[in-house]
Amino acid sequence: MKSKIKFTAYIATSIDGRIAKSKRSFSADWTSSEDWKFFQNSLARHDVVVVGHNTYKIAKNNLQKRNTIVFISKIIKPKTIGSATFLNPKLLNILDYFNSMKYKNIAILGGPRVYNFFLEHKMLNELYVTIEPYIFSNGVPMFSGKFKKTKLFLQSVKKMNKNGTLLLKYKYAN
Amino acid sequence: MKSKIKFTAYIATSIDGRIAKSKRSFSADWTSSEDWKFFQNSLARHDVVVVGHNTYKIAKNNLQKRNTIVFISKIIKPKTIGSATFLNPKLLNILDYFNSMKYKNIAILGGPRVYNFFLEHKMLNELYVTIEPYIFSNGVPMFSGKFKKTKLFLQSVKKMNKNGTLLLKYKYAN
Repeated sequence: MKSKIKFTAYIATSIDGRIAKSKRSFSADWTSSEDWKFFQNSLARHDVVVVGHNTYKIAKNNLQKRNTIVFISKIIKPKTIGSATFLNPKLLNILDYFNSMKYKNIAILGGPRVYNFFLEHKMLNELYVTIEPYIFSNGVPMFSGKFKKTKLFLQSVKKMNKNGTLLLKYKYAN
Repeated sequence: MKSKIKFTAYIATSIDGRIAKSKRSFSADWTSSEDWKFFQNSLARHDVVVVGHNTYKIAKNNLQKRNTIVFISKIIKPKTIGSATFLNPKLLNILDYFNSMKYKNIAILGGPRVYNFFLEHKMLNELYVTIEPYIFSNGVPMFSGKFKKTKLFLQSVKKMNKNGTLLLKYKYAN
C-alpha cells in the first residue's frame, strides 16, 4: 500500500457473516442503535464514502449529505449528480482518481463485491466489523469474490450494549 | 426446549463467516493451536458429538475415540460401526433417540446444514464461535438453511492469542 490514502471498511454482520437478507432487502433495521451512532460518527471523519449500486439505491437518503462514490458497471465515463459520483472502477485507475480528488480518508460501505474489490486491490487499511447477536442462516455474505485467505490483525474488541453487539477493529497486515 | 439434554455447537470461522474453502476441503489447518486445544478439552466434556457426512469423512481420524453420530441421508435404519452411528435424522425422532441413549451433553460440530438442523429444531443451547483473523472472500458458510433471524445472547468474549483469535460464547434466547 504505497498510497497515503487511508481506506476503512465498515461492516455490520450477523454472527454467521450475513450482511442482509437479499440484495434487494438491505435495510439495517436489525442493527443496534449503538452501532448506528458509531457508524454515523465515524463517517463524519471521512472525505468520501464508496458504495456499490445496490447499496446506494437502498441507502440513498442517508447518503445525500455525504460525498459518495457509487461503483456501477453500466457507465463509461464518471458522472456526478449532486453529492454522488457514479463510476466504473474497471474503466479507470481508481487510486489516481482518489488522488486527483485529494481524498485522504475513504470509507467503504459495501456491499460484498465492493468490500472485495478493495481487499483484492490492497486498498484496505482498517476494517470495523460489528457483529449483531443474530443468526440469519442465509443471505448476503460479507465478502464476495474468489477464495483467498487474507490475514488481518485484531486491534480491539468492544461490547457495545447489553444484548452483546460486538465491535471488532482489524488492521490489514501489510 | 423441554429436553434436559444440553446442546452445544462449536464453530471455527473466518471473519467473514466461512468455515472452509469447500465441502471437500474442510481441513482446519488455518485454525489456531489455542482454538484446537480449547476444542479438544471441550469435547471431553460431551457424551457424544454430531457431524454431517462430509465433516465426518474429513474428521474421521480425530473422531475415532469419540461417540459420534453421523447425519446421513442415504440410510434408512441407524447403523453402528465402531464408535460411530450413522442415521438419517429425518426418519426418526432424534430427541427420542438421544434420550434413549441417555445422552446429556451433546456437541454439534457441523457442517452448515447440521448446525442449521439443530437451530431450526430448537436444539441449540450454547454456541461457541471462534473467529480466526482471516478473510476468505468465499467458501462454506457457517449456517445453511432458509433465511430466518434467530436472536442469541452473547455471554462472553475471550482473546485467545496475540494474532487476535476470538472466542465468543452465545446462549440461545429461549
